[in-house]
Amino acid sequence: MTLNIGVIGTGAIGREHMRRITQVLSGARISAVTDVNRAAAESAIAPLGLEAEIFLTGPDLIASPSVDAVLVTSFGAAHEPDVLAAVKAGKPVFCEKPLATTAQGCRNIVEAEVAGGRRLVQVGFMRRYDAGYRMLRKIIAEDGIGAPLMVHAAHRNPGVGTNYVTEMAIHDTLIHEIDVLRWLLDDDYKTVQVVYPRRSPNAHENLRDPQIVLIETAKGVRIDVEIFVNCVYGYDIQCEVVGETGLAKLPEPMSIQTRSKARLSNEILTDWKDRFIDAYDVELRDFIEAASKGTAAGPSSWDGYAAAVAADACVEAQKSGQIVPVTMPEKPAFYNF
Amino acid sequence: MTLNIGVIGTGAIGREHMRRITQVLSGARISAVTDVNRAAAESAIAPLGLEAEIFLTGPDLIASPSVDAVLVTSFGAAHEPDVLAAVKAGKPVFCEKPLATTAQGCRNIVEAEVAGGRRLVQVGFMRRYDAGYRMLRKIIAEDGIGAPLMVHAAHRNPGVGTNYVTEMAIHDTLIHEIDVLRWLLDDDYKTVQVVYPRRSPNAHENLRDPQIVLIETAKGVRIDVEIFVNCVYGYDIQCEVVGETGLAKLPEPMSIQTRSKARLSNEILTDWKDRFIDAYDVELRDFIEAASKGTAAGPSSWDGYAAAVAADACVEAQKSGQIVPVTMPEKPAFYNF
Amino acid sequence: MTLNIGVIGTGAIGREHMRRITQVLSGARISAVTDVNRAAAESAIAPLGLEAEIFLTGPDLIASPSVDAVLVTSFGAAHEPDVLAAVKAGKPVFCEKPLATTAQGCRNIVEAEVAGGRRLVQVGFMRRYDAGYRMLRKIIAEDGIGAPLMVHAAHRNPGVGTNYVTEMAIHDTLIHEIDVLRWLLDDDYKTVQVVYPRRSPNAHENLRDPQIVLIETAKGVRIDVEIFVNCVYGYDIQCEVVGETGLAKLPEPMSIQTRSKARLSNEILTDWKDRFIDAYDVELRDFIEAASKGTAAGPSSWDGYAAAVAADACVEAQKSGQIVPVTMPEKPAFYNF
Amino acid sequence: MTLNIGVIGTGAIGREHMRRITQVLSGARISAVTDVNRAAAESAIAPLGLEAEIFLTGPDLIASPSVDAVLVTSFGAAHEPDVLAAVKAGKPVFCEKPLATTAQGCRNIVEAEVAGGRRLVQVGFMRRYDAGYRMLRKIIAEDGIGAPLMVHAAHRNPGVGTNYVTEMAIHDTLIHEIDVLRWLLDDDYKTVQVVYPRRSPNAHENLRDPQIVLIETAKGVRIDVEIFVNCVYGYDIQCEVVGETGLAKLPEPMSIQTRSKARLSNEILTDWKDRFIDAYDVELRDFIEAASKGTAAGPSSWDGYAAAVAADACVEAQKSGQIVPVTMPEKPAFYNF
Repeated sequence: MTLNIGVIGTGAIGREHMRRITQVLSGARISAVTDVNRAAAESAIAPLGLEAEIFLTGPDLIASPSVDAVLVTSFGAAHEPDVLAAVKAGKPVFCEKPLATTAQGCRNIVEAEVAGGRRLVQVGFMRRYDAGYRMLRKIIAEDGIGAPLMVHAAHRNPGVGTNYVTEMAIHDTLIHEIDVLRWLLDDDYKTVQVVYPRRSPNAHENLRDPQIVLIETAKGVRIDVEIFVNCVYGYDIQCEVVGETGLAKLPEPMSIQTRSKARLSNEILTDWKDRFIDAYDVELRDFIEAASKGTAAGPSSWDGYAAAVAADACVEAQKSGQIVPVTMPEKPAFYNF
Repeated sequence: MTLNIGVIGTGAIGREHMRRITQVLSGARISAVTDVNRAAAESAIAPLGLEAEIFLTGPDLIASPSVDAVLVTSFGAAHEPDVLAAVKAGKPVFCEKPLATTAQGCRNIVEAEVAGGRRLVQVGFMRRYDAGYRMLRKIIAEDGIGAPLMVHAAHRNPGVGTNYVTEMAIHDTLIHEIDVLRWLLDDDYKTVQVVYPRRSPNAHENLRDPQIVLIETAKGVRIDVEIFVNCVYGYDIQCEVVGETGLAKLPEPMSIQTRSKARLSNEILTDWKDRFIDAYDVELRDFIEAASKGTAAGPSSWDGYAAAVAADACVEAQKSGQIVPVTMPEKPAFYNF
Repeated sequence: MTLNIGVIGTGAIGREHMRRITQVLSGARISAVTDVNRAAAESAIAPLGLEAEIFLTGPDLIASPSVDAVLVTSFGAAHEPDVLAAVKAGKPVFCEKPLATTAQGCRNIVEAEVAGGRRLVQVGFMRRYDAGYRMLRKIIAEDGIGAPLMVHAAHRNPGVGTNYVTEMAIHDTLIHEIDVLRWLLDDDYKTVQVVYPRRSPNAHENLRDPQIVLIETAKGVRIDVEIFVNCVYGYDIQCEVVGETGLAKLPEPMSIQTRSKARLSNEILTDWKDRFIDAYDVELRDFIEAASKGTAAGPSSWDGYAAAVAADACVEAQKSGQIVPVTMPEKPAFYNF
Repeated sequence: MTLNIGVIGTGAIGREHMRRITQVLSGARISAVTDVNRAAAESAIAPLGLEAEIFLTGPDLIASPSVDAVLVTSFGAAHEPDVLAAVKAGKPVFCEKPLATTAQGCRNIVEAEVAGGRRLVQVGFMRRYDAGYRMLRKIIAEDGIGAPLMVHAAHRNPGVGTNYVTEMAIHDTLIHEIDVLRWLLDDDYKTVQVVYPRRSPNAHENLRDPQIVLIETAKGVRIDVEIFVNCVYGYDIQCEVVGETGLAKLPEPMSIQTRSKARLSNEILTDWKDRFIDAYDVELRDFIEAASKGTAAGPSSWDGYAAAVAADACVEAQKSGQIVPVTMPEKPAFYNF
């Protein structure tokens, strides 16, 4: 009854999921691992006391009868072939974002999955599992504020390194809003535009920061997302939905209110890893539950594909300054679950 | 049509009211002043450019036909005779707290006023004019939370000097809650008790600080007031009323919410003078309006007397550690306006 | 020493200011009034017990030696000639918005004022006198959040009548943000763009509601203002400034927090008249103080002109869907006070 | 490596813990159950698909080699003998509150545990595992507000049935504050006093509600706890700690802030089961982790005993209206872990 999971890629996020599956969640165990660096694989299983087999390659691991389901936590460029292999082997697979590094790569996975006739892929968009976003979606679904008309969002980091370039504001940062807002609104994107405020002096010289992304959805909802990765003061995720009759706002992370030194204040997180930490548990629990039944739930490969298409349009809009259409084929009925 | 006001006592608070009447409020002017120190009187009128007559004594000022109404802003021990003189002269009088330094002194004023048959005295309990307390009273009056059952209050100062002794926690600090809570609840006090938490190391050695005063009202409402005059962090007035079906809380003073340095915060005031600054304008406007009609409104001499009686009981409770009854004669119908 | 004020236009807002000057503020009196409808003028002075002369026309009133300063509170189309007359007469004039119904009209006033060599005009942009906006400006000025990079604002009304057409979202609604944000940021506008979310079903059929106005300033600050005049839930003014190192947010109006019926809640205002009510007092106090010295302070005719130019650009952007430049001549040094 | 847990008592709370251990948490399984009603035991294991042995009695279950650790979730009066049996068998035991129905019963368990020389008992005081209380304790421990001087707390339920009598305000309601505040302050209780506000009309006629419990600790901290079990508006747990230099307040449960119907509001919970739901997971994880090492952590039998002694004093204070001392023997060094 215990699900045997094979892990492809034993870097930081892979190890974190291995720990989670081993020490926190019920219903699954790590039965197999692989990494391009065998020593890394060994050092990942040792501290957890795992009796897991080490495979040479992803395909070998996927093919093994000791593996019921697969976690792809390798570097992004390596995701596509292993996800495809898992899909073709009929094994549920959880893939950290990005599903693939190109929209076409995501499309290939979608097509393989549709051909197989069964949902097998969950993409690691963990925000859908955050308690706050779930409450927000529930209020919208229960008509607490009328139909959504606008979304005002912000994604702020205290700072980034010099390796963070302008496009990464889309692929590494906005990508989370791209997915979670589609899901929150149950909608698709129609056009995107990017405008640049005055550059913050805290951004390194080759980075446009902040940026504002303006999105129009198929239903006509207008979204503005402020991306500000050198905001200095903290890691801060804001989301406010304006509906026909009211507003609903994503909760702040829980913290202690203090009165001290002439300030009434609450802490703001500074490390992104703390912000959605509980969501990772829920996300993997969802994967274990569905995979134990031979399928997948949560963010699908179609969602991964949609995010890739929207992100490509945003990057084009960054460069052109124009309003750029987001063009998607019709969603296969398969994904209307 | 302009009310001519004579001011007795031109210290800090007297000057502040003179400025207010001259430069802020319509309907009145300062026509006369007196001070035990004539030079003080002169230096008070000069910067305001007033054409005000300087009198030698309070009674002289009160008797002058150029004075329609009187402000008593001398030191506390001097209040009683001047207020009595004004009442006997049939002139409206605004008296800063305390109305008199003893309950009997307040009683003498009450009796003189009742004998005269017309309300003439307003005591300077300015909290009744604070917008927040007024909103709170309105919600209670409109049955927004059911009948009050409990009040949790706090009165905190960042620090006090070594001249501040334990009894002053009652006479100088709690006195504001004593008056405003009677008014807020439309109730009278029945018993009081004082308990002492561990002394703050920030209090000087002869001062018990903090203190908690527990009050039972005639209607059975239980009030707890934390008095903490060395709280360090700010000047902070809290008041929460628990009713049969809900709670209502005094608003925080308006301030800007900022996100900075990993804190989501609002400023807390540190200077008591800023906290009720708007209330002084409203308080004096009320006095000018009523005095222009030859009478007085707001906190009455009966309220001043009731506060003095309750304060005396609290000081007794400080010393005895016992539950002390608060004994008042029946309120003259005269004050049931 | 009392300032004699003549009022041109005794409709609702005119009467409100007359009451304020007579019953609330010190330092001024209403000495003269005029209205196209003489009966209206008479019925305005009677309840206040004023001894004010009634003039036949604005110019007559302005010319009278019994008038030191002028209030123009007639309907918008009538403002320009009376303001010009007051400027030419060298008398300080407070003019309710709009200063004139066209940018050119405003320009004419600017030129007359510059020619006269003395500031004489205050435009009735009352938000600059709101305690919240002032706190916000102070924090920015004191470098509490670094230099501003973005502003997220919203202007929401519960509903509007069928006479409210799409352009009024600019001229009647956004006009307040146009002025107050220029002042808050100490900046000018460079381009504007308008985008339309899905129309609210609560808007009448000829009205595009909500709208989002995107503004770029000369310094490169990006402003987004949501205008939503059928938001149903309340009258709600939001303004958040994102600076290089932090954020600052306009305070909510003070209200009582209650716990009742499973909600922890504060009231939201529903009537716009309550929102800035205190600001009107401060605004007129500023006028009385400056006019008593023969000049004017606060929002100038240049500010009125700048608002008109920006509003015209916004209306063009509403119609074209394009990014529209805001073109202004250089500010006369005269206004760099 | 999987911990085999035997469950004594398969009522609502027992089943909830069985589900948690089986479906949520890693590291343990339910290997055995017993219930006075065998049918109840059967119906508890069936839906979870457990292969668990059903025992006739608690002692039989405890003695079984298939049981490594024990959960006592039977009715309160049955706890003491089974906990004692587990302790004597050297098996870790988690016991829902109360540890025993009398202070002496708790004492018996303490003595058995001390005699055995190893911590084996965890009492089900789940609030110590609540994220909010943990944050509060952390701030105190890190000297964020100076040493605690006062605690203002409230425990409110929307309503209770007619079977809820005045003493239950202590044994069923206050008992949680009694434990969690001792832990929060790292302190012991010295005296208790109970005062009664006017009775709420929503309380049934034999119930004094609300009540205020005043507690003095060994270190001199003054605690006031409002108990109000017919507050109508919601289930609401408040806790504010006043320290020498600042205050810290227990967070409200996370919820969505909405603007709707002229209210800016957040939901207040109404069902107590939702309030600490996450804490149960953490609590049992702590038990599994310690029991896997043959010992116990968290609230000890000494804590269970201390809570019983304090509760007895509170009930005496309810009846006498007097200040009642709380008398405890010295804590065995054994519990100074």
